[in-house]
Amino acid sequence: MKVIVDLCIVPLGVGVSLSGYIAACERVLQESGLTCRLHAYGTNIEGEWDEVMAAVRNCHQALHDMDVPRIHTTIKLGTRTDRNQTLDDKVRSVEEKL
Amino acid sequence: MKVIVDLCIVPLGVGVSLSGYIAACERVLQESGLTCRLHAYGTNIEGEWDEVMAAVRNCHQALHDMDVPRIHTTIKLGTRTDRNQTLDDKVRSVEEKL
Amino acid sequence: MKVIVDLCIVPLGVGVSLSGYIAACERVLQESGLTCRLHAYGTNIEGEWDEVMAAVRNCHQALHDMDVPRIHTTIKLGTRTDRNQTLDDKVRSVEEKL
Amino acid sequence: MKVIVDLCIVPLGVGVSLSGYIAACERVLQESGLTCRLHAYGTNIEGEWDEVMAAVRNCHQALHDMDVPRIHTTIKLGTRTDRNQTLDDKVRSVEEKL
Repeated sequence: MKVIVDLCIVPLGVGVSLSGYIAACERVLQESGLTCRLHAYGTNIEGEWDEVMAAVRNCHQALHDMDVPRIHTTIKLGTRTDRNQTLDDKVRSVEEKL
Repeated sequence: MKVIVDLCIVPLGVGVSLSGYIAACERVLQESGLTCRLHAYGTNIEGEWDEVMAAVRNCHQALHDMDVPRIHTTIKLGTRTDRNQTLDDKVRSVEEKL
Repeated sequence: MKVIVDLCIVPLGVGVSLSGYIAACERVLQESGLTCRLHAYGTNIEGEWDEVMAAVRNCHQALHDMDVPRIHTTIKLGTRTDRNQTLDDKVRSVEEKL
Repeated sequence: MKVIVDLCIVPLGVGVSLSGYIAACERVLQESGLTCRLHAYGTNIEGEWDEVMAAVRNCHQALHDMDVPRIHTTIKLGTRTDRNQTLDDKVRSVEEKL
């Protein structure tokens, strides 16, 4: 099952400067080989369900390994059987109608 | 890794009456044996990461098997290494301070 | 415009024990007079759009007044014109089909 | 109060092709004069709380005026008192650490 995800990981108990932790997650995602796009409030990811979810879990594990005691994550997630759609397709289909 | 999740699954392309589809997901979650609590805008789940994520995937599969062509899901997800906390603990710790 | 909301407020930069802050938000919501239901990963609220959004803003203001430097909030939000539906209606319509 | 938002609006009861509705929301956001960035799973917005929330409400109103009977929206929302941060600052602070 193919999935498109918007992932937002928020480490808790490590103060208010979170970009170093977000960068650590970005490296985990890049190493996964999945297509990813960082934006100002999360990261879009496309790929097979199990691979994407394994990457999300690896992000949590990497942060806990950096001594982050608590993590709050928000995931938006879309699957569809009617057609195959990439991250770029989704943006393009909106921009064409503007 | 233990996880606490808030799951909200929205089937698309099947009109505006969604409760039959949400009930189908509830049955999938109940069969998973995980601790679940339905509320008015989703379902809280606690359990091991892989079991919870497998249950979420099974919900998507069950809806696509019911001919739902597209699904939009939102997940809030918490992990922590500092202590073990159940769904009931979380509610109780807030209510004690009201 | 009537709205049904699931609100999850996460204060950052104040350690890992958040229940005191969540309780402060619950008091703000109770004072608003809106119908609210606390669950393990947020609070369901129903009411008029402007009143609900004012209450959410008041929660942020109350936390910043308690010296919380940064807040990350997730809101799920539903509006519909086809019929009037309460929080309790939503749970009941699923439970009837289980 | 300044706010940074990630907005994802999902119209229900209008089939599976949603890009025309998302484009309508983008036009509402552009007319608001707020800084916005479309991505593959939502739109980032920065601005004053009341202006951003008014724009979100205007999106819902615009869709209902297009005969969308039901709307499901997800909002991530951040406020902070420790410093002023733009959408571009947030991306840059992560990319600098990659």
